[in-house]
Amino acid sequence: MRGKFIVIEGLEGAGKTTAHQVILRELEQAGIKDIVMTREPGGTPLAEKLRHLIKHESEEPVTDKAELLMLYAARVQLVENVIKPALAEGKWVLGDRHDMSSQAYQGGGRKLDRKLLETLKESVLGTFEPDLTIYLDLDPVIGLERARGRGELDRIEQQSLDFFYRTRERYLELTQNNDKAVIINAEQPIEKVTTDIQQAIRNWLK
Amino acid sequence: MRGKFIVIEGLEGAGKTTAHQVILRELEQAGIKDIVMTREPGGTPLAEKLRHLIKHESEEPVTDKAELLMLYAARVQLVENVIKPALAEGKWVLGDRHDMSSQAYQGGGRKLDRKLLETLKESVLGTFEPDLTIYLDLDPVIGLERARGRGELDRIEQQSLDFFYRTRERYLELTQNNDKAVIINAEQPIEKVTTDIQQAIRNWLK
Repeated sequence: MRGKFIVIEGLEGAGKTTAHQVILRELEQAGIKDIVMTREPGGTPLAEKLRHLIKHESEEPVTDKAELLMLYAARVQLVENVIKPALAEGKWVLGDRHDMSSQAYQGGGRKLDRKLLETLKESVLGTFEPDLTIYLDLDPVIGLERARGRGELDRIEQQSLDFFYRTRERYLELTQNNDKAVIINAEQPIEKVTTDIQQAIRNWLK
Repeated sequence: MRGKFIVIEGLEGAGKTTAHQVILRELEQAGIKDIVMTREPGGTPLAEKLRHLIKHESEEPVTDKAELLMLYAARVQLVENVIKPALAEGKWVLGDRHDMSSQAYQGGGRKLDRKLLETLKESVLGTFEPDLTIYLDLDPVIGLERARGRGELDRIEQQSLDFFYRTRERYLELTQNNDKAVIINAEQPIEKVTTDIQQAIRNWLK
């Protein structure tokens, strides 16, 4: 039987790493053993090299379009060489970010043309999509404060607050009224966020 | 006054390097001094890193789409950060390959979807295009023999002959009846190719 693809989405500091652990534990407790972990951009040798260029290129200004195209180049590699083969073997895949991040950050945040984004999504992914997306929603001010507390911010994290508000808005647009997405209020205390995620996974597994 | 953008196109072994020297000399003799040389993929710090990934990635199979997206990511960087600023300053730009290579190799050779290619071209370049393209046309068998004589072939050069026939066909489709392109018969002896290029540049400069 084909495995399932679960993705965690959200702004910086939303608690994706914690959510990852919580979901992993829930799946294991439900008897699901073969779980492949991925992150985007990245997750393959070439995609990890692209991740480095996307996040840390410092010799020249990276144009918004080049950033988007590198993200999709990394995504093709991950989907074709890792995610699809794993699912076909019956493994489950738990992803830290996927296509929705590009829609939200590059589409919403950077205001890149919807037509370009749609063509890339259609061409690279076709009808392929996550079976479930857990979106951790919070005010960017709170998320960025948490992210700053962890140390240096990368190139994308050093954006204006407006950028993150537009990103959150697009996230909400994509997850509200989406029966393959669950919105978690990530402004709550961590214990409450954890039980909300557990509950979402348990409901979905039924 | 805005500078001009001249591009050399053609298959492996068509004689692009020689053509480059010939054109450069012609331009200099015509009194054009500020000439910026570019190559694609490459020509900026980030684009050169992408060039390396495109040509020499060996840890995993590179999908055709990832290759295409990396090519366009490199192209955005070169056009926005190098070519357009140079032209705006009145410099001339002499390019070793440009967008037509992607149309011919990835569109023709790899048979990638025309819609994706068109959307990328439109989104990345808009109406920007070379003022003149010198296309060196020859039978791929002859070109590959020459290229092999120079040593090891890179990942793209190691394609089947069919791939190069499809690439040449798309090149011809794009240059025939194109008043901004000149087709040079690159199967001729080098002296004749040289005079043909000189003549083409002189006619065009008038």
